[in-house]
Amino acid sequence: MSSAISPLAPKSFAPMPPIDGVRLATAAAGIKYKGRTDVMMMIFDGDANVAGLFTKSKCPSAPVDFCRTNLENGSARVLVVNSGNANAFTGKKGAEATALTARSAAKAANCDTADVFLASTGVIGEPLDASKFDGVLNGMARDARPDAWLAAAKAIMTTDTYPKVATRGATIDGVSVTLNGMAKGAGMIAPDMATMLSFIATDAAISAQALQDLLSEGVGSSFNAITIDSDTSTSDTVLAFATGKAAQFGQEPVTAASDPRLDDFRAALHALMTDLALQIVRDGEGARKMVKVQVTGAEDNRAADRIARSIANSPLVKTAVAGEDANWGRVVMAVGKAGEMADRDRLAIWFGDIRVAVNGERDPDYSEEHASAVMREDEITIRADIGLGDGQATIYTCDLTKEYVAINGDYRS
Amino acid sequence: MSSAISPLAPKSFAPMPPIDGVRLATAAAGIKYKGRTDVMMMIFDGDANVAGLFTKSKCPSAPVDFCRTNLENGSARVLVVNSGNANAFTGKKGAEATALTARSAAKAANCDTADVFLASTGVIGEPLDASKFDGVLNGMARDARPDAWLAAAKAIMTTDTYPKVATRGATIDGVSVTLNGMAKGAGMIAPDMATMLSFIATDAAISAQALQDLLSEGVGSSFNAITIDSDTSTSDTVLAFATGKAAQFGQEPVTAASDPRLDDFRAALHALMTDLALQIVRDGEGARKMVKVQVTGAEDNRAADRIARSIANSPLVKTAVAGEDANWGRVVMAVGKAGEMADRDRLAIWFGDIRVAVNGERDPDYSEEHASAVMREDEITIRADIGLGDGQATIYTCDLTKEYVAINGDYRS
Repeated sequence: MSSAISPLAPKSFAPMPPIDGVRLATAAAGIKYKGRTDVMMMIFDGDANVAGLFTKSKCPSAPVDFCRTNLENGSARVLVVNSGNANAFTGKKGAEATALTARSAAKAANCDTADVFLASTGVIGEPLDASKFDGVLNGMARDARPDAWLAAAKAIMTTDTYPKVATRGATIDGVSVTLNGMAKGAGMIAPDMATMLSFIATDAAISAQALQDLLSEGVGSSFNAITIDSDTSTSDTVLAFATGKAAQFGQEPVTAASDPRLDDFRAALHALMTDLALQIVRDGEGARKMVKVQVTGAEDNRAADRIARSIANSPLVKTAVAGEDANWGRVVMAVGKAGEMADRDRLAIWFGDIRVAVNGERDPDYSEEHASAVMREDEITIRADIGLGDGQATIYTCDLTKEYVAINGDYRS
Repeated sequence: MSSAISPLAPKSFAPMPPIDGVRLATAAAGIKYKGRTDVMMMIFDGDANVAGLFTKSKCPSAPVDFCRTNLENGSARVLVVNSGNANAFTGKKGAEATALTARSAAKAANCDTADVFLASTGVIGEPLDASKFDGVLNGMARDARPDAWLAAAKAIMTTDTYPKVATRGATIDGVSVTLNGMAKGAGMIAPDMATMLSFIATDAAISAQALQDLLSEGVGSSFNAITIDSDTSTSDTVLAFATGKAAQFGQEPVTAASDPRLDDFRAALHALMTDLALQIVRDGEGARKMVKVQVTGAEDNRAADRIARSIANSPLVKTAVAGEDANWGRVVMAVGKAGEMADRDRLAIWFGDIRVAVNGERDPDYSEEHASAVMREDEITIRADIGLGDGQATIYTCDLTKEYVAINGDYRS
């Protein structure tokens, strides 16, 4: 598997400010990797309100089951994440491992196991030896620091080629609040590495329900709008924590997502989620190009979304992008196979600003040279206008390269 | 694009007997290729009953539109197929091209354009110069021979690495009848080559409606049960022709698919269709291994089909097969993402005869060595038992190799 940093990686990491009430720590527990950190702890001073979104997989990992249960009371004291083992498809042993980890974490954070949140990413089907956490969690709780965001993002990497962090500011009641986030992974990654994980924290005083509503709103155009290989992990998890510390500076707690006082925060949260989601795409396995698929003029937004995903998941479109081939015939194919209303004679297709097809045939002004110039860019926008209605959708993906096959075809060991 | 013959190709071609009432011819019309045949004609002595199935694409090719219209009267005198240009996404020009081709073919076969059937495979979006057929169709009609099946199958190849033919015999009323078929392509093939095409002919006396019903019955477990890359062509076409010549040997015409006299013929037709479908999989782009995905114990057959397609279309499962990696964690992932009922703790997975996972975890007797031995075979069966019901499905696919990316990423020219 490749260790070279993705050519699409950001040139620098966002400087991550501290979040009042949030401390982070990392450790090397030897879950699978040698000579690197593989456990991350996010610990809260007092109860944080928590919101979460999880994989739609019918075979979710044990930590996903665990978080779904604890999410019901909406408060969190500590988050523990490990890399190297996904604790997925591990049956009863998997549930025992999350229970043991939760007890160790609760002891370390001096809280109830109901306030513990867990995530695991790595090999599927290998039993997770949770006893390895015992030795490290107490020390992590003691040494956790507010400024360890980048180190934390590094500890949860599997075959990611760079850590993913982002930060935003917003004001509520004229009080400044901060939102920090980290993420890892891109769909099902490399030989056995599962999972997209993202963890967001803010000092804003927001109820768990309001935070959940904002998170659910934002995921459609961010984490749910990216696809690397159409493969859904068993472990996808997005968790957001609000410490409420901004209340001490006069921010009145907000209890409803519809509250207009959240307008600025909402925008900042959605921007943060999109930032992290695109960083995941830029680190897609073997990715050499980022692709923005825009569909307009579909029957409705749902139809536009299905058509955009059909284009973004098509191996033939993705290999054409890898080959820098302005192969719009494959976009026609992908529109056609989506199963949504489409009229060949109304369809128009653009690569970047170049319209390559219109009214059911190649654009009369089509220039292979101009289209090819667009395809040589690092970031490519493919737009299909269906010409039937107002439905719109945007999906982000990357190209399909020989490197993807090499990474995923390498023998597991 | 690769010209090496697929390692999964059959060792020899079926000896194709003549079909009474069917003659074939090929020609080099210079549609796109140089130095090879690119037009195939199948001409019938008198009217043949015809049945057809076409792509579900919402952007079908002009010949598909043309055939759908002519299929309504259920009788055929001549079939003309070209390779090198799909006449797809060619707008009004495309319809003009099929009309012109139909007039030339009708003149050559001395019939009405309503009795002409057409198919095209090749580049999408390039206008097809139908005038090129004019020069060759008359000669083809004159020189057509009953024994030219293999030559015909070669003329319709695009990036296929070998021609695909099959034959079966059956008896109706104790009268022997013969079924011959040819096919090309595998999903969307290579830079711009679209289409799966299959043409079947028999001397049996069967009504168009009965033939249509038998064809529709058989496609589910044959042509619709294969997937190379999940990409649906704009031009997929299966046509079956019955000349009825067996009537002269005492076979009473059959008018209903439910007629028990068709039992043997039905079995032979379905076997022929499956034979041709599997030959297509064996010629999948870059394919090194054929994969049979069997799902059992699903809620119902529809659920089993969706789960089997989720496994067969997963890039991660297909790259694992390419890497000879018994990576059952990816099968779990694919079962989970299918969106159908699944219970991790009831799921069992086999590679060949080796059960690798059971009751939600790795099989206690799991042996990497034995599983790896299975993965080194040319043909691999992946079985998932969902443990919930009686639903079953089988889908055939191939592995995803660097060669696939190379073939499809090569610059179009």
